[in-house]
Amino acid sequence: MNTDEIFAPIREELNAVRSTMLDATKEDNPQLTGPLAHVLRNEGKLVRPAITLLCGKLHNYNREPLVQMAAAIEFLHMASLLHDDTIDKADTRRGQPTVSSIWGSSTAILIGDYLFAKSAYMVSTLNRTELMTIFAQTLMSLCIGVLEESKNAYNSKQTREDYYKKIDDKTASLFYLASESGASLSDAPKTAVEALKDYGYNLGMAFQVVDDILDFTGQQEEMGKPVGGDFLSGNLTLPAIMLMEKQPQDNSIENAFRAKCNGVDAQQIIGKIKNSAMIEQSYAVANDFCFKSKQALAEMPDGDARKSLLDLADYVVERRK
Amino acid sequence: MNTDEIFAPIREELNAVRSTMLDATKEDNPQLTGPLAHVLRNEGKLVRPAITLLCGKLHNYNREPLVQMAAAIEFLHMASLLHDDTIDKADTRRGQPTVSSIWGSSTAILIGDYLFAKSAYMVSTLNRTELMTIFAQTLMSLCIGVLEESKNAYNSKQTREDYYKKIDDKTASLFYLASESGASLSDAPKTAVEALKDYGYNLGMAFQVVDDILDFTGQQEEMGKPVGGDFLSGNLTLPAIMLMEKQPQDNSIENAFRAKCNGVDAQQIIGKIKNSAMIEQSYAVANDFCFKSKQALAEMPDGDARKSLLDLADYVVERRK
Repeated sequence: MNTDEIFAPIREELNAVRSTMLDATKEDNPQLTGPLAHVLRNEGKLVRPAITLLCGKLHNYNREPLVQMAAAIEFLHMASLLHDDTIDKADTRRGQPTVSSIWGSSTAILIGDYLFAKSAYMVSTLNRTELMTIFAQTLMSLCIGVLEESKNAYNSKQTREDYYKKIDDKTASLFYLASESGASLSDAPKTAVEALKDYGYNLGMAFQVVDDILDFTGQQEEMGKPVGGDFLSGNLTLPAIMLMEKQPQDNSIENAFRAKCNGVDAQQIIGKIKNSAMIEQSYAVANDFCFKSKQALAEMPDGDARKSLLDLADYVVERRK
Repeated sequence: MNTDEIFAPIREELNAVRSTMLDATKEDNPQLTGPLAHVLRNEGKLVRPAITLLCGKLHNYNREPLVQMAAAIEFLHMASLLHDDTIDKADTRRGQPTVSSIWGSSTAILIGDYLFAKSAYMVSTLNRTELMTIFAQTLMSLCIGVLEESKNAYNSKQTREDYYKKIDDKTASLFYLASESGASLSDAPKTAVEALKDYGYNLGMAFQVVDDILDFTGQQEEMGKPVGGDFLSGNLTLPAIMLMEKQPQDNSIENAFRAKCNGVDAQQIIGKIKNSAMIEQSYAVANDFCFKSKQALAEMPDGDARKSLLDLADYVVERRK
């Protein structure tokens, strides 16, 4: 199943999220229009807003605030991507030129700040301070995740626990903001809010583990980025950590990272990881997170929304890009 | 009077603001510690937190939330300075090296984001959604102010109205966030909240007009930056706008801006502005804002806090750096 099929029960609401984002940016300063329109045109699969909407459909469905929250979460996601691309000096995102490559890094910093502000504003108007608190905590987590990643570039001493902490901060945090806020806005019982937060955590962890596997196994054309790009830029991910755990006598990754992947045959190491059992074992980890995310839905009311959340968990592991 | 004297009635609370900021940053990720400690060591006069505290002393004094809000406002101010310095590629701030010049622009972007998040978090825990909304609106205004300034660099067609709009967004907005939130947290009557917001607006406008005058008249040693630095970087401010209004046949500013101040005698133009009646006339504008800010305090209860707010208005215009 693709995301269009999985998100069929909320197709109309996702369109409302798109309209909300467009409206929220149209009214503003004309100088923002060009870069913001570029960011909105280049939208992703809207997985995070979809999680909010689907989790919000499990209990007392409360359309307007859910759409508003979903749009705010996508804005927060876009803002963090804008700053990430500026920090990484990335030229393309989803196959399109980045804001920083077209309008320069200053504009990208400011547009990112503006989207942070706009998303915080949208959440604040929902009049639920507990949502504002978890929203702000998520922004802190995103910053810490990126800081850890950049601080630990080419550090081969990172453990599996370091890795889990990092992907929790940089990726899973937005997924459980999405699920928890959806649950909270539909006045779900406390246990259900906790369970759906758990769903979001495990889904986000699975999502990032698979992303890190695809860095080795994906096709450049499909992924829109070079194979092993994360490894080459010094980001140590699960398959490489597993290989070092398994073969402590093999120093090739340490040596490559010490040389910042210059003057060593990094492609050979990438090939070695790609063709090792570490890919399967990393998928086992992703499947475990996926399983736990589905388990978290055990007590949720049956229906379209629950089915989509279950399908989304499978999709996250099965996707090829 | 200097700010130490003016802030005497809230000396203890300002120390509590300092401790709150230190505590809020200590508990966090160790990678943030170095750059955050650097930012905190290099504190300014804490004018914005002082406004919150003083406005909060006029009605039902509510110490803890006022200190928390004051610290959040200073964090927001610091975050915006961090991003401004990164955008401007500034090497020094208040005579000290900037975070971006020591740790690089990526760290400066992230630390700024983190301080935005932290300040939003601190405001959210006050459990007052209306404060969260004006907080987020202020962050939007700050972004728009900087965007307008950078977009209009070396644009000599800006009017006095454009200028007022720009300094409202980039400077006054934080001042009236400070005064309005202080009033609101002390449960001031609605008319008093409006009056204190008005105080903050006029004080902030006066503050920025004087800043822009001092760019021409200040001493490099006192200011810690070269005379006419704003003019040289293409920021058109009130004294220059007034000169163009007064002498429309004189094209020297237009010509200098068209050449981006290269290959023209920009120092000669800076000297001309400095020695013109435009300085006095700009001070008349600042005094008018100062007068209105004091007028806004007319109905406020008498006492130390009101006296300090009045003195602060005079200080803002009289200061030499």
